[in-house]
Amino acid sequence: MSAAATPARPEALLLRDATEQARALAAGEASSEQLIEATLAAIDRLNPRLNCFLHVDEEGAREAARASDRRRREGALRGPLDGLPVAVKDNIDVCGMPTTAGLRQPLHDAGDDAPVVHRLRAAGGVLIGKLNMDEAALGTANANPHHGACYNPWGNGYVPGGSSGGSGSAVAAGLCALALGTDTMGSVRIPAACCGVVGLKPSVGRIPNRGVVACSRRLDTVGPLVRGPRDLDWILPLLEGLAPADASGRLYPAYVPATASLAGLSLAVATDLGQSVALSPEVEQLYRDAQAELQARGAALQGVSVMGLDFGACRRAGLVVVEGDLRIALAEPLAERPDDISPELHKMLAWIVGRSAPELAAADWALDRAAEALLACLGDRRALLLPTVPVPAFLHGSPVPSGHADLTAVVNMAGLPAISVPVGLSSEGLPLALQLIGPLGSEAELVALAAGLADCFPECPPPCTGVPGKGK
Amino acid sequence: MSAAATPARPEALLLRDATEQARALAAGEASSEQLIEATLAAIDRLNPRLNCFLHVDEEGAREAARASDRRRREGALRGPLDGLPVAVKDNIDVCGMPTTAGLRQPLHDAGDDAPVVHRLRAAGGVLIGKLNMDEAALGTANANPHHGACYNPWGNGYVPGGSSGGSGSAVAAGLCALALGTDTMGSVRIPAACCGVVGLKPSVGRIPNRGVVACSRRLDTVGPLVRGPRDLDWILPLLEGLAPADASGRLYPAYVPATASLAGLSLAVATDLGQSVALSPEVEQLYRDAQAELQARGAALQGVSVMGLDFGACRRAGLVVVEGDLRIALAEPLAERPDDISPELHKMLAWIVGRSAPELAAADWALDRAAEALLACLGDRRALLLPTVPVPAFLHGSPVPSGHADLTAVVNMAGLPAISVPVGLSSEGLPLALQLIGPLGSEAELVALAAGLADCFPECPPPCTGVPGKGK
Repeated sequence: MSAAATPARPEALLLRDATEQARALAAGEASSEQLIEATLAAIDRLNPRLNCFLHVDEEGAREAARASDRRRREGALRGPLDGLPVAVKDNIDVCGMPTTAGLRQPLHDAGDDAPVVHRLRAAGGVLIGKLNMDEAALGTANANPHHGACYNPWGNGYVPGGSSGGSGSAVAAGLCALALGTDTMGSVRIPAACCGVVGLKPSVGRIPNRGVVACSRRLDTVGPLVRGPRDLDWILPLLEGLAPADASGRLYPAYVPATASLAGLSLAVATDLGQSVALSPEVEQLYRDAQAELQARGAALQGVSVMGLDFGACRRAGLVVVEGDLRIALAEPLAERPDDISPELHKMLAWIVGRSAPELAAADWALDRAAEALLACLGDRRALLLPTVPVPAFLHGSPVPSGHADLTAVVNMAGLPAISVPVGLSSEGLPLALQLIGPLGSEAELVALAAGLADCFPECPPPCTGVPGKGK
Repeated sequence: MSAAATPARPEALLLRDATEQARALAAGEASSEQLIEATLAAIDRLNPRLNCFLHVDEEGAREAARASDRRRREGALRGPLDGLPVAVKDNIDVCGMPTTAGLRQPLHDAGDDAPVVHRLRAAGGVLIGKLNMDEAALGTANANPHHGACYNPWGNGYVPGGSSGGSGSAVAAGLCALALGTDTMGSVRIPAACCGVVGLKPSVGRIPNRGVVACSRRLDTVGPLVRGPRDLDWILPLLEGLAPADASGRLYPAYVPATASLAGLSLAVATDLGQSVALSPEVEQLYRDAQAELQARGAALQGVSVMGLDFGACRRAGLVVVEGDLRIALAEPLAERPDDISPELHKMLAWIVGRSAPELAAADWALDRAAEALLACLGDRRALLLPTVPVPAFLHGSPVPSGHADLTAVVNMAGLPAISVPVGLSSEGLPLALQLIGPLGSEAELVALAAGLADCFPECPPPCTGVPGKGK
């Protein structure tokens, strides 16, 4: 459209959403090589402070960007992702890069892309590097004991959320257009919420888990973090679908972008959340404000009690299930390189050995009951609206609230899709977020609803990172 | 069509498939009341020998039949199942009937129908009673220690297969048009194979498990046993679909009857099965004959090695997973009424308490590897053809072959659908069967292929039960 306009400086694109970056490349306002160079320069400048990248493949990225530009000149583009910077949580295999899963040393140097990474690469995504995370994907603060804490671009010293903290931080700071995270009890949505970006946890088995270091065979999902909900309408179709011989995959209809009107929309909201989860006053107020806004726009809110969800019991059962699986997933470093594992993780992995098989089975059954309680809250409504996290980001070093993942983990137990949407800033200038939880396979509707929800609130400026484009 | 023809004696309908029974009712050749009376009379005559029914609700069945006949007169029929006799394995709740799950005394008197039973009743199915099974659905011979052995109508003293032995026996003997069984490691397909009827294990989560006493939360499926594959084209749509707040459900496209031509059909067959599983010579010959017949009709057979499937390790891991769950499912009788549980089952449930949580987690991981190996055998082919069981039915009291469920259990581990098809009789006059295993959600294609496979073999007479219609 505006191909004749003066090309913007590529740096100015870094904080725009992937859709806008793709438009700018298509309009000739920048080349992929320019965009990737600007990205690498921003990483050089910001990563010492944010510590979101654990590994950067500058040469591979430059080469992929040049190849993308060649395809563009030859009219052989692979789609809107072609030439955009993409980064991946360090528990997902990227061919030729190490996979640490947050342990001290790599579990392996990946000889193959995970299927989900292979799909991004086949679509022309430029793989920049691997992102910081909590050790073994266990945690919600990304205080990694081996690679150092990852920081939130929104404020000095603040956690980015976890376990995909590097993914949240990098997307928020404009260091990639799209990051992949993994979400076992909230690990995509929590950093998305803390960092003011959009994070989607897909329906279980919709995006292949193969090539991902397992945290829980039951609860794990791979999910994207982006700056705008509309990005997901063309990114999710790239990621989804069964991978050959992947036993964790399920059958879903192909993603078709949806539109959603708030008028008449049946939406469940919790009437007694504060009795179960310690919400900060600002989150509580935000949740009420969002309900008022949605109602004003015609949504048919239906109050439901969440007292059937015993969040504390869910959390404890979820940890039993996760630790049982981690003991298997990490069997080799446990036996061969115990120093690669922190004392805290050693303690958890020793504790689970003392539990009996029926205790683990009982935990799985407790997760089923939690899932049923959540499904009953959702009923036949289009979505259930909840805060993503009970509190905004906090300072590294302060205690992690015990219920930090309570509002997200139960969604994994039910296998449902959920999207975290940034909806404003706290009085301290830290992002606030809500999540929309929908029925199995309802990702497209959730993305459309997320856009509608975001529209209810004034747009926030990007964080103050020193990257051009700050404050728009 | 032939409504003007002389009505057949209702007894003559008992061994016809459900489609033919429905046609006969529609043509006015018999009323539902007549069909149900003939069924109850046959149960009276045969059940003392077969012991397939543990509970018969004569009055409820008569009343439901009369109600169906009224609906028929009023033009308010609920579909082809309306007025046909249906029976249910005794681990599935039927409102007003006891549910024993094969234990000595009922776990409860069901206050509600399981959703799958509710659907049958809503479609006009006449619920006759509850069917014998192995204790707690663990076993493949239906030698129930509390309620006595169930017998195979094909020969005196033979096992019907298990654990849904009552379902296989009752359908083979013409004592219901449709029986529901449950299949955790083969418990629908094994009795279908032993009794010479069609048994379908659906894709995991396609038919709701709610209201079923769990054997394994991961492996359980509810499946139908019928006399003809064509019955499934209208019965499966009645059974499938998510139930409200059922965490075990998955999303599948609605069942649409398919047609399948054998010409050009890509079908995987095992080239080295005999190295892994001890097949009887007759089963081995049958498997070869079927391949020759299918090839002669144009199917593109592709030989695959099954050496990646460690059947013995799968079986052991499967039992660990099942026992972990059974310890939870049977917690109440274990604590409150231990005499309701046999010494053998007590021993298994005590053994699992001595296993650690990581041992159970490792078993789940082993099941995932088995699933991946099976998915690799299937590849992108339409189906994988295997025998259902390695040997024909054997005499009660003789040892159960150790690999009896090896060819079926791995299908549950992968969550795939499979159908067992009767394809002839052994030299002793006992049924032989093959199973077709397809990709997730491929039930309709499997049913069409099952019909094609059955066409490759001469039709067998029904078993010699003394029921009119014997030998056709």
